[in-house]
Amino acid sequence: MKLNIAVLPGDGIGPEIMEQGVAVLNTIAAKFGHEIEYKTAICGADAIDKVGDPFPDETFEVCKWADAVLFAAVGDPRFDNDPTAKVRPEQGLLAMRKKLGLFANIRPVQTFKCLLHKSPLKDELIAGADFICIRELTGGMYFGEKYQDNDKAYDTNYYTRPEIERILRVAYYYARKRRRHLTVVDKANVLASSRLWRQIAKELEPEYPDVTTDYMFVDNASMRMLVEPKFFDVMVTENTFGDILTDEGSCISGSMGLLPSASTGESTPVFEPVHGSWPQAAGKNIANPLAQILSVAMLLEHFDLKEEGILVRKAVDASLDANVRTPEIQVDGGKQYGTREVGEWIVDYIKN
Amino acid sequence: MKLNIAVLPGDGIGPEIMEQGVAVLNTIAAKFGHEIEYKTAICGADAIDKVGDPFPDETFEVCKWADAVLFAAVGDPRFDNDPTAKVRPEQGLLAMRKKLGLFANIRPVQTFKCLLHKSPLKDELIAGADFICIRELTGGMYFGEKYQDNDKAYDTNYYTRPEIERILRVAYYYARKRRRHLTVVDKANVLASSRLWRQIAKELEPEYPDVTTDYMFVDNASMRMLVEPKFFDVMVTENTFGDILTDEGSCISGSMGLLPSASTGESTPVFEPVHGSWPQAAGKNIANPLAQILSVAMLLEHFDLKEEGILVRKAVDASLDANVRTPEIQVDGGKQYGTREVGEWIVDYIKN
Ligand SMILES: CC(C)[C@H](C(=O)O)[C@@H](O)C(=O)O
Ligand SMILES: CC(C)[C@H](C(=O)O)[C@@H](O)C(=O)O
Repeated sequence: MKLNIAVLPGDGIGPEIMEQGVAVLNTIAAKFGHEIEYKTAICGADAIDKVGDPFPDETFEVCKWADAVLFAAVGDPRFDNDPTAKVRPEQGLLAMRKKLGLFANIRPVQTFKCLLHKSPLKDELIAGADFICIRELTGGMYFGEKYQDNDKAYDTNYYTRPEIERILRVAYYYARKRRRHLTVVDKANVLASSRLWRQIAKELEPEYPDVTTDYMFVDNASMRMLVEPKFFDVMVTENTFGDILTDEGSCISGSMGLLPSASTGESTPVFEPVHGSWPQAAGKNIANPLAQILSVAMLLEHFDLKEEGILVRKAVDASLDANVRTPEIQVDGGKQYGTREVGEWIVDYIKN
Repeated sequence: MKLNIAVLPGDGIGPEIMEQGVAVLNTIAAKFGHEIEYKTAICGADAIDKVGDPFPDETFEVCKWADAVLFAAVGDPRFDNDPTAKVRPEQGLLAMRKKLGLFANIRPVQTFKCLLHKSPLKDELIAGADFICIRELTGGMYFGEKYQDNDKAYDTNYYTRPEIERILRVAYYYARKRRRHLTVVDKANVLASSRLWRQIAKELEPEYPDVTTDYMFVDNASMRMLVEPKFFDVMVTENTFGDILTDEGSCISGSMGLLPSASTGESTPVFEPVHGSWPQAAGKNIANPLAQILSVAMLLEHFDLKEEGILVRKAVDASLDANVRTPEIQVDGGKQYGTREVGEWIVDYIKN
């Protein structure tokens, strides 16, 4: 297969983990005889510094050229305590989502046996939990009409039927590939937008008789995820609720540093770690490259390169089992490996 | 002291737990020489069935007459899967909040040593956690302009400066009574309404130099609450975020069935359990009355009846220590007490 890949390393630890992600992708390509062409582009604070725009047109062009985007992370503390700053790295993220039509954010929440002790939840609750959160990513309050002056402000949680229907169909698609259980999360007892979500979901339900659909209010979902995470298989929700619930979901696994995500939609899909840019660790060779490497696995699987994806996952599991780990997940007294060393170990594993 | 109390038992287990709450309040009144006049009023599904309105005018009048409302719970499964039903019990709740101007919902998140094993979080994370969530309760998407037709829908997350300022002042008031640490939770990197919240908080901050104020994005707060609940002292946020975060907070304590709450504002304050109406348990004498009884403690403390409040709390702790508990929190093999028996034990304890 021939793939064009846009590489967006972004800020903080982004460039370091991206290096390992690309190395893994190259190794897979060589082993399986795929041809990959890369173009690297700037985004985030890096792009603000260089050209004053966190998602410049040239970067957008590279993304359109590509079959898939491999993204690392954006964000810089210089902008964090200044929410009124005219240009912020996050705007680059939102612009990318909107311009590429990335309406579906897919986040597998998976546990790793050897990291269960890292979960804030009791082991017996979380062991074996395995679900995916699907978040609508280009609608709702993030993009609805906004207003702010000194005395009042508003955001509009606006959704249209086609926006809701397409994300629900994505959710059903994943439910069918998994345990055929879909939970639609909303606040239909209060919000008009949620009532439309629920109405449309109820209309689609008969088309997927092989999937069990249930409905849950968002406040309840935030609790259920803690007291019974194994209840969930596929969960789907709107943008703002999804922002909160996907982070909660990632965090309960205890493996947030290892979780990848995919955002798909109308054009080029984007694969990226769930974690952020961790600016304090930048350049120190201590960041965990596994989420970036597992994002490569998701990318491969997206193009139906199943065997390739499985091999990447196997290599990651092997590195964990061999205790080849970065400091934050290393066992007490274990040797602490660097970002590069973990990446190289995985590359070697794949080669052999 | 003379107090007029409106009693709103509502639905499901409401009447049973209310009976115990009132019994405790009467016992305290007798012991300390206070005079209490009660008026009982209908609300929720019960009121829909009787008069077609979940918060009828007569109930509103009783609330206005009262110095405080003791509320139990509303909600009935008959209405749950019909979010488009014209009249629903929840509307009674929202009407009560709006009509009484209950803009501040205060939820202490407290752990009970003997119930730590009930928490989904690891014991060492949750032991000793003690914070309060303050949720704005009469603004935002719950009450902003709404629209829905077959093809589109929206809700408006609208806030004005006075609405934001008054809830932040409530939060600072509580922070000063506690460990002087306030966390303002918003999504100022995306939402205009959140930016106004943050702007106003930054303006107020200098008036409270003795309180440490910090700011956290809501997605981050939902994680921090799990990985470091002891970080928090007082957390304040807008209505929708508060709906999710207060439930998450209650649930991590492992003692949700025991947590009371207060809603205060422009007129009569309301005191109620955090848990719902648990219709499946109605009439079975198995519901835990402790959250209702602790709501009585909050009510007493609201009127500065400190000694009285402390005695109620002491009685509750004593009942737990004596293993006089309802089924859901009883230890393995322990005798399971009924709603009434737990209430009577606590009344006896207070008397002697
Ligand atoms: C940085 C921020 C704008 C973004 C969001 O809220 O979508 C982030 O929290 C995420 O979840 O990807
Ligand atoms: C029943 C519902 C309308 C209500 C809310 O969302 O405010 C409830 O969840 C709560 O938190 O008190």
